[in-house]
Amino acid sequence: MRKIDVAELNKKYTDYLGKEVTVAGWVKSARDVKSFGFIDLNDGTGFKGVQVVCNADMDNYANVIKLNSGSSVVCTGNIVATPNNKQPYEIQAKEVKIICATDDSYPLQKKASSFEFLREQAYLRPRTNTFNAVFRIRSLAAMAIHEYFQNNGYLYVHTPLITTADCEGSDQMFKITTLNFNDLPYTQDGKVDLSKDLFGKQSFITGSGQLHGEAFALAFSKIYTFGPTFRTENSNTKTHANEFWMIEPEIAFCDLEGLMDIEEEMLKYIVRYVLDRGMNELQFLDKFIQNGLVEKLEKVVNSKFVRIDHKDVIDILKQAKVKWEFEPDYGEDIAKEHEKYITEYFNGPVFIKNWPKDIKAYYMKLNEDGKTVAAVDLEVPGAGELIGGSQREEDYNKIVNRCKEMNVDTSTIDWYLNLRKFGSCVHSGFGMGFERLVMYLTGIDNIRDAIPFPRTPKNCNY
Amino acid sequence: MRKIDVAELNKKYTDYLGKEVTVAGWVKSARDVKSFGFIDLNDGTGFKGVQVVCNADMDNYANVIKLNSGSSVVCTGNIVATPNNKQPYEIQAKEVKIICATDDSYPLQKKASSFEFLREQAYLRPRTNTFNAVFRIRSLAAMAIHEYFQNNGYLYVHTPLITTADCEGSDQMFKITTLNFNDLPYTQDGKVDLSKDLFGKQSFITGSGQLHGEAFALAFSKIYTFGPTFRTENSNTKTHANEFWMIEPEIAFCDLEGLMDIEEEMLKYIVRYVLDRGMNELQFLDKFIQNGLVEKLEKVVNSKFVRIDHKDVIDILKQAKVKWEFEPDYGEDIAKEHEKYITEYFNGPVFIKNWPKDIKAYYMKLNEDGKTVAAVDLEVPGAGELIGGSQREEDYNKIVNRCKEMNVDTSTIDWYLNLRKFGSCVHSGFGMGFERLVMYLTGIDNIRDAIPFPRTPKNCNY
Repeated sequence: MRKIDVAELNKKYTDYLGKEVTVAGWVKSARDVKSFGFIDLNDGTGFKGVQVVCNADMDNYANVIKLNSGSSVVCTGNIVATPNNKQPYEIQAKEVKIICATDDSYPLQKKASSFEFLREQAYLRPRTNTFNAVFRIRSLAAMAIHEYFQNNGYLYVHTPLITTADCEGSDQMFKITTLNFNDLPYTQDGKVDLSKDLFGKQSFITGSGQLHGEAFALAFSKIYTFGPTFRTENSNTKTHANEFWMIEPEIAFCDLEGLMDIEEEMLKYIVRYVLDRGMNELQFLDKFIQNGLVEKLEKVVNSKFVRIDHKDVIDILKQAKVKWEFEPDYGEDIAKEHEKYITEYFNGPVFIKNWPKDIKAYYMKLNEDGKTVAAVDLEVPGAGELIGGSQREEDYNKIVNRCKEMNVDTSTIDWYLNLRKFGSCVHSGFGMGFERLVMYLTGIDNIRDAIPFPRTPKNCNY
Repeated sequence: MRKIDVAELNKKYTDYLGKEVTVAGWVKSARDVKSFGFIDLNDGTGFKGVQVVCNADMDNYANVIKLNSGSSVVCTGNIVATPNNKQPYEIQAKEVKIICATDDSYPLQKKASSFEFLREQAYLRPRTNTFNAVFRIRSLAAMAIHEYFQNNGYLYVHTPLITTADCEGSDQMFKITTLNFNDLPYTQDGKVDLSKDLFGKQSFITGSGQLHGEAFALAFSKIYTFGPTFRTENSNTKTHANEFWMIEPEIAFCDLEGLMDIEEEMLKYIVRYVLDRGMNELQFLDKFIQNGLVEKLEKVVNSKFVRIDHKDVIDILKQAKVKWEFEPDYGEDIAKEHEKYITEYFNGPVFIKNWPKDIKAYYMKLNEDGKTVAAVDLEVPGAGELIGGSQREEDYNKIVNRCKEMNVDTSTIDWYLNLRKFGSCVHSGFGMGFERLVMYLTGIDNIRDAIPFPRTPKNCNY
């Protein structure tokens, strides 16, 4: 008999009432109530498991009923309705095959474990309810993103990870090499001879796919990337990891207002998608991780995002009767405390736009005032900055001037600048950190718990 | 007026007959026929563009009609049916705004360019018909893969790219570092002091997500990865790149036969998806790149894939009246010429299974004969090996023994081996190189033309 996924069984159990099925999975718990016993079983295909009832006269009952959490079993039995019970049906076992029983050495015993401990068990923690829920929401959100962009005519582009050009600056990138560190080749002037490396020059793993994305947007009009990204930041905070996933759409013939329309529509699509398909997981997370999570998400779908200039945000912050740790300033970035205040002030997501040019990147469109750039950050309640985007400078001379002003090395990005000569047009794009989104959707407050195997300074296990 | 995507217009032009629309995109060609002129325009949202008709009395007619390929324009005009013409409608322009005209310095002039030349123009080549088609099929195939797995209850997992463990061997991996090559720290015994590196030890970018994928399969039963992968191979062939994308599903409680069922179903789903949504592109590629492409793909969808043991394949090859470059042998891998022969022999895709253990990896399930492993390669006509998979060894003692026999360093994969202690079960998985798939789907015969910005030895531009 072919086994059935527990998720499928939970969805269609009425089709199986009175029939024999086989399920295979892992024991959450087993307990003996004298003449019979229960196994809570899940195969991970869904958030919810299934209850298997075993009669004490089963051959291997004594072994089955003392199974530890994490043991693998294959159960065959009949589906029986259980009205007035907490689950609508159960499996009355005919046979429970023990495949691999765990013993006391199994790191995840029944007692609740701390997140810190579970990070040390990254290969096992997806078996816990919390991480089952988080990684399931993560998978749903990824699919929502692909669906949103594909349904709206965007091309999915795999921009390169290995690069010699980068929009975030090479001091923030990991160098890669095939050279042997303890047997390096040297040039005559005593430098490491990178011409002997596989690519014949210094190469990196990238911090952004934006530049390559723009090249594709100027061919396909609407593109998105969705891939891993790397930063060398040596900082141990709850929101920084050295490896994370990014979504970077670029849209030709689209200005800043059009970009905000897209960001708002996309975010609502993702949230709606997750609410529709992950309610069991969200309700669990609402109960144990972030009270009010479901209400927060429902509200976003139905809200109209505020759009406000950076200088007007500073006005609001200055007028606020708050003692700031960092004093708000027209020429400066805004701090975490400001983000928090402003999203609470408007009671919902806020687009902050038209930022002082000196704190933003060279590729952003210079506004007519000569002082600000057409950049926009989306701030969301409880998570701060979720998306950063801008209209891109499409004028060749202006972008070259900005590079000069900001001491940007243009030797490896001449092709990028040339895009401004060959059929250039108004175009815009944004970057959304995927883990930030997952944290927002799940209420998880540490990025290490939103990534399957997180990489942070001094921490690259598994 | 808000602009409309050309793809949308081509799909629903009857809704717009007699109405005014605005389209924005790039000129493919412009030509003057005395009292009026034509612009072939595409915005890249679809494979097919739109014809814009301009009257000679238009203000800027003289400039419009001499526009070079690649110039960007915004056109407003009425949609008019054009029966008996090659396209069912055209836009009668009221206004053509020239946004950025290209001149003679534009690298892609109207004449056809060689693939070699276009590789040097990787940032512009998506504007050509061939690469428009290839990258569009690539995007469709990626979505097909996500749809197939998500619809069938698989969890999408982002396995880490930065790793200290790898299933393909560290000599095939790029090392990453934040250290300055020309100012390296040393330990007392004169070795480079990697404890000073960001992760405090030697780390790499990965050649596979399989090991981490297995950990997740033993929690969620059915998972898939889809992400970039890296190999340091210093080989310049048509099928090797140093950076490529892989799909690596892992399935718990699934044996080799079950794995082949999944591979066959998935591949047919992808091909069907691309046939349904990319026929314009496929017909173009059929005409200019690989004659018979569409027929080849249609045939795969309706075929039953052959399943045959490695030793029986060797029998067939030995009996063949062919003078081989490499003599087929029971203990050996099969060569390109053998792959070609065997797919032609069976006239369709062939699963070759149960390979000699000595030429396969330590993690593959040892068969009862003690000589072969439960591995399977899928060979497809015209492209050779497309997918490689196996049942994984689920027995702790057996996998540890295999590691010893094959001198596998287990110090960084103890957690992976421990999966065999904690609720282990029969499980299987495969890896499909995404570029190989794209080559198969498009008929493109060089991997450099199936990747947006290919990375090969001495070649890391853009």
